[in-house]
Amino acid sequence: MGMVGGGKDAFIGAIHRLAAFMDGQIELVCGALSINPEVAKASGEELYLPAARTYLTFDEMISKEAALPADQRMDFVTIVTPNFAHFAPAMMALDNGFHVVIEKPIAFTLDEAKQLKAKLDQTGLLLCLTHTYSGYPMVKQARAMVADGVLGRIKKVWVEYPQGWLSRLSEREGNAQAAWRTDPKKSGKSGSMGDIGTHAAHLAEYVSGAKITKLCADLNTLVEGRMLDDDGSVLLHFDNGAAGVLMASQVAAGEENALKLRIYGEKGGLEWAQMEPNTLLVKWLDAPAQILRAGSNYGDRLSSYATQNCRTPGGHPEGYLEAFANIYRNFTRTLQARLDGVSPSKESLDFPGVEDGIRGMAFIDNVVASAASDKKWTEYKI
Amino acid sequence: MGMVGGGKDAFIGAIHRLAAFMDGQIELVCGALSINPEVAKASGEELYLPAARTYLTFDEMISKEAALPADQRMDFVTIVTPNFAHFAPAMMALDNGFHVVIEKPIAFTLDEAKQLKAKLDQTGLLLCLTHTYSGYPMVKQARAMVADGVLGRIKKVWVEYPQGWLSRLSEREGNAQAAWRTDPKKSGKSGSMGDIGTHAAHLAEYVSGAKITKLCADLNTLVEGRMLDDDGSVLLHFDNGAAGVLMASQVAAGEENALKLRIYGEKGGLEWAQMEPNTLLVKWLDAPAQILRAGSNYGDRLSSYATQNCRTPGGHPEGYLEAFANIYRNFTRTLQARLDGVSPSKESLDFPGVEDGIRGMAFIDNVVASAASDKKWTEYKI
Amino acid sequence: MGMVGGGKDAFIGAIHRLAAFMDGQIELVCGALSINPEVAKASGEELYLPAARTYLTFDEMISKEAALPADQRMDFVTIVTPNFAHFAPAMMALDNGFHVVIEKPIAFTLDEAKQLKAKLDQTGLLLCLTHTYSGYPMVKQARAMVADGVLGRIKKVWVEYPQGWLSRLSEREGNAQAAWRTDPKKSGKSGSMGDIGTHAAHLAEYVSGAKITKLCADLNTLVEGRMLDDDGSVLLHFDNGAAGVLMASQVAAGEENALKLRIYGEKGGLEWAQMEPNTLLVKWLDAPAQILRAGSNYGDRLSSYATQNCRTPGGHPEGYLEAFANIYRNFTRTLQARLDGVSPSKESLDFPGVEDGIRGMAFIDNVVASAASDKKWTEYKI
Amino acid sequence: MGMVGGGKDAFIGAIHRLAAFMDGQIELVCGALSINPEVAKASGEELYLPAARTYLTFDEMISKEAALPADQRMDFVTIVTPNFAHFAPAMMALDNGFHVVIEKPIAFTLDEAKQLKAKLDQTGLLLCLTHTYSGYPMVKQARAMVADGVLGRIKKVWVEYPQGWLSRLSEREGNAQAAWRTDPKKSGKSGSMGDIGTHAAHLAEYVSGAKITKLCADLNTLVEGRMLDDDGSVLLHFDNGAAGVLMASQVAAGEENALKLRIYGEKGGLEWAQMEPNTLLVKWLDAPAQILRAGSNYGDRLSSYATQNCRTPGGHPEGYLEAFANIYRNFTRTLQARLDGVSPSKESLDFPGVEDGIRGMAFIDNVVASAASDKKWTEYKI
Repeated sequence: MGMVGGGKDAFIGAIHRLAAFMDGQIELVCGALSINPEVAKASGEELYLPAARTYLTFDEMISKEAALPADQRMDFVTIVTPNFAHFAPAMMALDNGFHVVIEKPIAFTLDEAKQLKAKLDQTGLLLCLTHTYSGYPMVKQARAMVADGVLGRIKKVWVEYPQGWLSRLSEREGNAQAAWRTDPKKSGKSGSMGDIGTHAAHLAEYVSGAKITKLCADLNTLVEGRMLDDDGSVLLHFDNGAAGVLMASQVAAGEENALKLRIYGEKGGLEWAQMEPNTLLVKWLDAPAQILRAGSNYGDRLSSYATQNCRTPGGHPEGYLEAFANIYRNFTRTLQARLDGVSPSKESLDFPGVEDGIRGMAFIDNVVASAASDKKWTEYKI
Repeated sequence: MGMVGGGKDAFIGAIHRLAAFMDGQIELVCGALSINPEVAKASGEELYLPAARTYLTFDEMISKEAALPADQRMDFVTIVTPNFAHFAPAMMALDNGFHVVIEKPIAFTLDEAKQLKAKLDQTGLLLCLTHTYSGYPMVKQARAMVADGVLGRIKKVWVEYPQGWLSRLSEREGNAQAAWRTDPKKSGKSGSMGDIGTHAAHLAEYVSGAKITKLCADLNTLVEGRMLDDDGSVLLHFDNGAAGVLMASQVAAGEENALKLRIYGEKGGLEWAQMEPNTLLVKWLDAPAQILRAGSNYGDRLSSYATQNCRTPGGHPEGYLEAFANIYRNFTRTLQARLDGVSPSKESLDFPGVEDGIRGMAFIDNVVASAASDKKWTEYKI
Repeated sequence: MGMVGGGKDAFIGAIHRLAAFMDGQIELVCGALSINPEVAKASGEELYLPAARTYLTFDEMISKEAALPADQRMDFVTIVTPNFAHFAPAMMALDNGFHVVIEKPIAFTLDEAKQLKAKLDQTGLLLCLTHTYSGYPMVKQARAMVADGVLGRIKKVWVEYPQGWLSRLSEREGNAQAAWRTDPKKSGKSGSMGDIGTHAAHLAEYVSGAKITKLCADLNTLVEGRMLDDDGSVLLHFDNGAAGVLMASQVAAGEENALKLRIYGEKGGLEWAQMEPNTLLVKWLDAPAQILRAGSNYGDRLSSYATQNCRTPGGHPEGYLEAFANIYRNFTRTLQARLDGVSPSKESLDFPGVEDGIRGMAFIDNVVASAASDKKWTEYKI
Repeated sequence: MGMVGGGKDAFIGAIHRLAAFMDGQIELVCGALSINPEVAKASGEELYLPAARTYLTFDEMISKEAALPADQRMDFVTIVTPNFAHFAPAMMALDNGFHVVIEKPIAFTLDEAKQLKAKLDQTGLLLCLTHTYSGYPMVKQARAMVADGVLGRIKKVWVEYPQGWLSRLSEREGNAQAAWRTDPKKSGKSGSMGDIGTHAAHLAEYVSGAKITKLCADLNTLVEGRMLDDDGSVLLHFDNGAAGVLMASQVAAGEENALKLRIYGEKGGLEWAQMEPNTLLVKWLDAPAQILRAGSNYGDRLSSYATQNCRTPGGHPEGYLEAFANIYRNFTRTLQARLDGVSPSKESLDFPGVEDGIRGMAFIDNVVASAASDKKWTEYKI
C-alpha cells in the first residue's frame, strides 16, 4: 500500500493505517504523505518508510513506483486527501495500473466520479471507497435480512446522523478539520450533507436494497458566518415504494457521531446505531423483539456476511476500526483472489466501490438542487 | 365528574377514569357512557353509578345535571367519544355552565375548535385538553430548561412518533379502535397525523416554546386499502429560527408507542423518550451528558414544574397513567382554586387547553394542505 | 378501607392510598392516621373522612367500626405504621373480623408473624402483605416462565438492591424516614436487610419458585455512627440446587432504587430491573435474546398472570404505583369473590400473604445470625 | 515479537496478533506456534514467517533467536499457550535476555509466579501480563477518578463476570477451548475463578486501588460431570475498609462476556460494563449522574490515562481489540523508552505485570482454600 495524504496530525489517514494494519495482511511501503515536504519526510520516518519511497508528491510516487519491477512496487494506492484532491491521484494511479482505495466522497464532482468509473471499466482495476459504516457486521446482517425478505416488503426508512462538533464557528478558531470541511473550495457544494449525509444515504440504500428516486431537502446553516450547510433534513421516496427521512446535522450540540438506521417492513423492523454497533435490534409485529449480536451465530442463524466480518466472539466488542478494517480486508481478499486467479467469495466482494461513489456525488447534487428549489419534489438524477 | 363516552370496552375512557381516580380527588358521579343503551346501563352499574344518573345521551345528562341543585350536580364533563362527537357535548356543557375535559383532538374541525374558544372566552369556564405527554414531569423539566435559556438559542427540534399497530388492515378485521380512527367520517381529514402527529407537534411546541411557522409534509398511506394516511414526515420551521422534523407512523411494524423528542440549542441538547419517561438526557457541548431523573431533586436543581408533578421518589417509576393524572390534578387544582377564590399556582395552570386544541386542529389542516401541494413550503395558518 | 398510620407527610401511607384508589374499587372510609391527634384530625380532613370516622387510635377505630352495622363498617384495615407497630393493630383487626393489608415487613419479630398466621388459620380471614415488586406484570411473567420450565432447571439466582439514600448519617439530620428505619427499636434487628433485603429475597423466591435453604451473610455498617447495618451481601443456596447471591445496600451513593433480578437455567436466563419494569429480557443459550414487554401479548404468548396485571397497551409505561395497585386489586378481587360466594381466579389469588411475611421475618433472623457467626453456612430456619 | 503458541485455530493467539499489529509498531518475526509440527509450519506460512524462523518448540526458538546478532533477533516473546505451559518458556526467555508478554494467568501456580518475579528482579527485564480489561480507556478513567478522590472514601466494590458458554458439557463435545479450560491438569486448580474470576479481581483492585484482605468463597460446579468449578461468588473485604462481592459464572446461559464493575464512595459511584466499554457512568449523591465517554475530553476534564489510550474521537467506538492493543502499545512504549535511554511516561508504564500476576495466582489459591473451608473468612495470603 502507498498512501497519498495522511501525514502527521491528519485524522483520517491515521485511521486508514490502523484499519489496514490490523489484520497483518497490508504493509505501508511508500507514501506522498503531505504537500509540505518537511511534514512528508517526518511522517515517512515515523512510519518506518525508507527515505527512497517517501515521496513529496503523488505524481512522483506513482511514476516512480510504476517504474519499479512488478514484484517490488506497491499493490495499490490509498488516497486520504481532502475531497478536492481525490480525483487527480486516483486517475493517475489507475492510468498507471494501480488499484485504488479512496476515502469518501469519491471525488469533488459527479462528473469526476463518472470519469473514474469509465477508467475502471476500461482498465479492469479495482476501486474501494471507504464508506466505513457499511463495514459493520450487524449492518451486513441487516442488509442480508432485508434481502432475504424476512421483514416483507420495506415501507419505511429512517436514517439520522447527528453530530455536534460544528456547533461553534470552529473553522475560524484554528480547527483544521473544520476549516476544510466548511470551505466550499475544498469540501464541495455541501457541508453536512457531503460530509455525513452521504454516509447516511449510503447506509439507507445499502441496507434497504432500494434506491432513492425523489427527494425534498431542507438545508440550513445554523451557525452564523458558516459558508456551507451544517444541518439538513430530506424527505425520501424509494424505487420500491418506501417512504423515508434522512436527517444529518453537525450542530446537534452534545451529540458525538450518532448515525442510526431504522427500517420497517410489513412484518417487522430493524434498528442499528453506530455507537453501539454490535447489536441489531429486530422488532416483530407479532412476536417479541430480538437482540442480534455480532460475534454470535446462534447455530448458523446469522448471515455469512455478518459472521465473516467479525474477529472476536460475542461480548468482545468490535468497533469503528474493525468496521473500517473489514472494508480493507474484503478489498484485499478480492485483490488476492484476482492475483491468485480464483474467484473471490461473495462476502469478499462486499465492499463499496465506484457505483457507491457516483450515487454519493449524485446525492449531494440532488439535495443541493432540491434545497434551492420551491418545488416539493426533485427527481433523483445521476 | 360526568363522562360522555367511555363505556365498557372503550379504551381511552378507562384510561381517563384511572387517571382521574388516582389522587383520590375526583369522583365519577354520572355518565352517558355509550350510544348503545344496554352498554350505557351495564357500564354505569360496573362503575357504581346510581341508575338515576346513568344517562342514555349526553343531552339528557347535561340537561338533567344542570337541573340539579348546584351542590349536587357534577362539577365538570369529560368527553371521551370519537373525534367527530367531541364538539356537540362540549358546547352544550359550556352552555350549561359546566367545565369540560376533552380527549384530544379537541374537535373535528378547526372551526369547531374556534367556536369552543369563543364560548370559553364568553363564559369564563375552563377547558382541559388531555395531551397526555405534556403531563410527564421530565417533559416539564425540559420545557423549563429551554425557557430558562440553559441550552442557549434553540436551533433544532426533532420529534418522532412511531407506532406499529396499524401495520395490517386491522380496520377490516374487527378492530374497533382501528375502524373509527381510519375512517375520515369519524376521525377527520388525517389518520396518523390527527391521531399521533398532533401529539408530537404539541410536544415539540410545548417544550421548545416556539411555534411552527411553515411546514412541508409528505403523507403516505402505506397499507393498501386504507382510507387515511398512516404515515407521514413533516419538515418544520419555527418562529425562533429553528429547523425541525416531525415523523409519525402507525405502520412502523414492531414499534409500540415510541414518542421521542430531541431539542438542540447552542450549548447542548435534550432527549426524552416516552417509553422511559422518568429520564431526561441532557447533552452538553462542553461537558459530559447528564441524566436527570423524575422524583429526584438534587438539592432543588429541578424545576418546580417537574417536582410538583411527581408522586414517588426517584427510582420508583411513574408512567403514562401518572402523566395523565397530572393533567387531571392540575386541572382540578385550578378548578379548586377558583372555587376557593384564590389564585391557582403557576404549576397548577400548566395543563393543555383550548389554544393547544386550536393549534392541533390547525396542524392537521396545514399538514393535509401541504401534502396536497406541489410547493415545498406551506405557511402555517390558523 | 380503614387506615392505621399514613397521616400527612408519611411516605408509604400516601403510596397505599394512590394504589388503592387507582382502580376505582376501594374507598377510604375511616382512619387512625397518626398517633398525634392534631395530625390525625388534619389528615382525616384532607382525605375527606367524616369527623366521626377520623379516629385517634387504632384501638378506637377497630372497636368502633366493629360496632357499626355490617353494611356500614369498613371491609378491611390497612396498616402502614413503622415496623414495630404492625402487630398489635393487625391482631386486633383479625380478632374483630376485619381482613388486613400490611406494609412489609409483616411484623417486628418472627414470633409475631407466626401468631398472625395462627390467627388467620383460626379465623379464615385474609391478609395481604404489600411486597410491591411482586406486583409488576413482568415479574409475574418471569415467575410463570420459570414455573413452566422454559428455562430448564434453575441454576443461578442473582438479586441486587442498591440504594444510596442513606449514604450520609441522615438520621441525625432530621430525616424522619431515615430515623425510624435505622433505629433498632422501631425497625427491628436489621436495617438494610430488613428494609430492602427482604424485598430482594422475596422477589428471588417468588420468581424462582425455590426456597433458600442455607446462607452466608456479610452485614456492614458503612456509615459511621449508624446503629444498624446499611449494607450487606449474602451467599445463598436453594432447595432446587441453585446457587445465588443477594446484595442490598443503602449506601450505594448515587443509586435510586435499583432492584434487579437475574435468573439462569439450563436453557437461558431472565433479567428484570425495577427501574425499567415493563421490560423482561430473556436470554437464550442458543438463540438471540428477546425483549418481552408489558402490555403486549404477541398472540397470547404471555402468561395470564402478566396480562391480567396490565392496564395499558404496550408502550404506555406502567410503574411502581400500578404494581402496588395490582396487589390491592388482586386482594380485593379475592375478597369480592369471597363476598360473592365464588372461587377467585388463580390470578386474583396471586398476592403476597402471611407465608411470605413469615419467610421475610425468618430471612432477617437467619441473615443476622449468619452475620454474627464465624461459620460459613447458616441453615435457614423458620 | 516471537510467539509461543497461537497456531491456526487457537483463539487467544490470533487476538494477540490483531492487538499487536494494530498500531503498526510490532512485527511478528518468529514463532513456535504449535506443539504439532505440521500445524506449526502451516501457521508460520500463513503468517508470512520465514521458514528458518518457524520453530517447532519454544526451546528451539529461544536458543536460536538468542544466537542471532542482537539487531536481528526478536525483541520479546509472547506466550499464548494454555496455562500449564506458561512458566517454562517465560523463564527460558528471561534467562536468555528476552522481555516477555504472557497471556493471563501468569503461570500454573503461585510459586511459579514468584519465581518469575525473582528472575525479573534479577535481570531487570520487562514482563507484561495481558489483563485486557485494564486496557480500556474508561477503566483507566475510573481508576484515575478513584485515585484523585473525587468519590471520597471507597466503601463498596461490586464486580461481576457472567458468561454462558460453558452451560453445557462442551468439553465432552469436541470444544477444544472448553476441554483444556475445564481440565485441572491444563487449567489449574480452579475453572471459572481462574479463567474469569482473576480478571474480575484484577479489575476490582486496579480501579479501586485497594487490595483484598480477606474473602469468603462459594464455588460451584453447576454442570454435572465437569471437573472444575464453573461458577462462584466471593464476599470480599479490602484494606481500605471497603466491602465487596465478586461473582463469576460460565454457566449463566445466554450471557456473552458481561464483565461489569461498580464502585461506590462517599460522594458517588462509578459503573463500567465491558460490553459497552466507551461509557463510564458516574452517579452522584447530590447531582445528576454523568455519562463520560471515551474519545471525548470536555476541555481537558478526562485523565491523561484515558485520553492517551484512545485512538478515535468520541462516538467512533473502540472495543476489545483496542483495549488489548493498548496493553501492547504501553508495553512497547516502555520498551522503546528503555531502548532510547529515556524515562517512559507514567501513562506508558500503566500495563499489568508480574505483581498483578502474583496477585492473580494468590487469588485463585485463596478462593479455592476458602471454598474448601467451613470458616466464613479466609485471610488473603500471598
